[in-house]
Amino acid sequence: MPNIPHFLPVALEHASRLINHGPTVLITSADGTRRNIMAAAWSMPVEFTPPRVAVVIDKRTFTRELIAASGTFAICLPGSALIELTYAVGNRSGRTMDKFEHFGIGTHDSPALQLPVLASGCSAWLECRLIPEKHTEDAYDTCFAEVVGAAADARIFRNGHWLFDGGNADLQTIHHLGGGNFVCAGNVVRATGA
Amino acid sequence: MPNIPHFLPVALEHASRLINHGPTVLITSADGTRRNIMAAAWSMPVEFTPPRVAVVIDKRTFTRELIAASGTFAICLPGSALIELTYAVGNRSGRTMDKFEHFGIGTHDSPALQLPVLASGCSAWLECRLIPEKHTEDAYDTCFAEVVGAAADARIFRNGHWLFDGGNADLQTIHHLGGGNFVCAGNVVRATGA
Repeated sequence: MPNIPHFLPVALEHASRLINHGPTVLITSADGTRRNIMAAAWSMPVEFTPPRVAVVIDKRTFTRELIAASGTFAICLPGSALIELTYAVGNRSGRTMDKFEHFGIGTHDSPALQLPVLASGCSAWLECRLIPEKHTEDAYDTCFAEVVGAAADARIFRNGHWLFDGGNADLQTIHHLGGGNFVCAGNVVRATGA
Repeated sequence: MPNIPHFLPVALEHASRLINHGPTVLITSADGTRRNIMAAAWSMPVEFTPPRVAVVIDKRTFTRELIAASGTFAICLPGSALIELTYAVGNRSGRTMDKFEHFGIGTHDSPALQLPVLASGCSAWLECRLIPEKHTEDAYDTCFAEVVGAAADARIFRNGHWLFDGGNADLQTIHHLGGGNFVCAGNVVRATGA
């Protein structure tokens, strides 16, 4: 486990909850010395146990090339303080620049798969191993993967639960409406039947 | 187009934007006189044009049975005023009751596919035709579909854009964190680079 302040491991049976509410995420990938980061609005869990996810990643992207080579990627959840960065990395290609260097993004190596995960500004990350599904990757740009590691900032996700409150607004998830407009999560309501 | 107050058709090229930000949705389905409604936290667009989506629907549900029979389903977006209903229909099976009757849910027939869509409380709905993909339906409970019709309440979605403001809180989308806790969308931030 890299030494990221406040970060603690998330039990694998709780990993799907990190993206249950549809946040926009950052996908990081690496193959040898090549690495990349991109934004993805389209991801979802598909199974709790084992934790599995689906992410839409355009087949023309550098990220898809790296994932095909390494068979792995990470999902990082940017907090609201990273809205500008999320929008910026979603609008440049990593083929001709190292976006981490260009945007000054500090990283750590994730413990299970040695993927670059953000050193600050994210509420959580998930390490994923691609489940090769050529047809859905080709037809729908949809990549299925199994989550093999996860961690979260204990100030906002603890014991398997999100804890949004007035004190952690900068870490709260963001949800892209399109065109650079993001909804910030925050106002939590509990169903009385729950 | 059914006469739902404030509802206007959404151009198909904008349909994917309705679920771009990861809202929890209601899935409605019908086959002959049988019909059902369930909640789904796991859905996403997979393509803008033609508009295509992926939704995770457990293979043991009555909804999957109806979708397999009819080849269609609708996605309705509950506003925050429907949190209790969303949680309730997500925790009962429609095999032994008509949940529309049980919960007093009024519906209209959607124009393209004659599916039951909610008469009030939703911000939008999408009519979907299943794209049969046996392997992903079996392995990941993931159903791909093409959106063939969409409409939204013009008080919150107009000209292809979400318009969250202080006056439409009841229609704003909800995002299930798990265990009956929902984040309400609402606080919109625009990236300065956009």
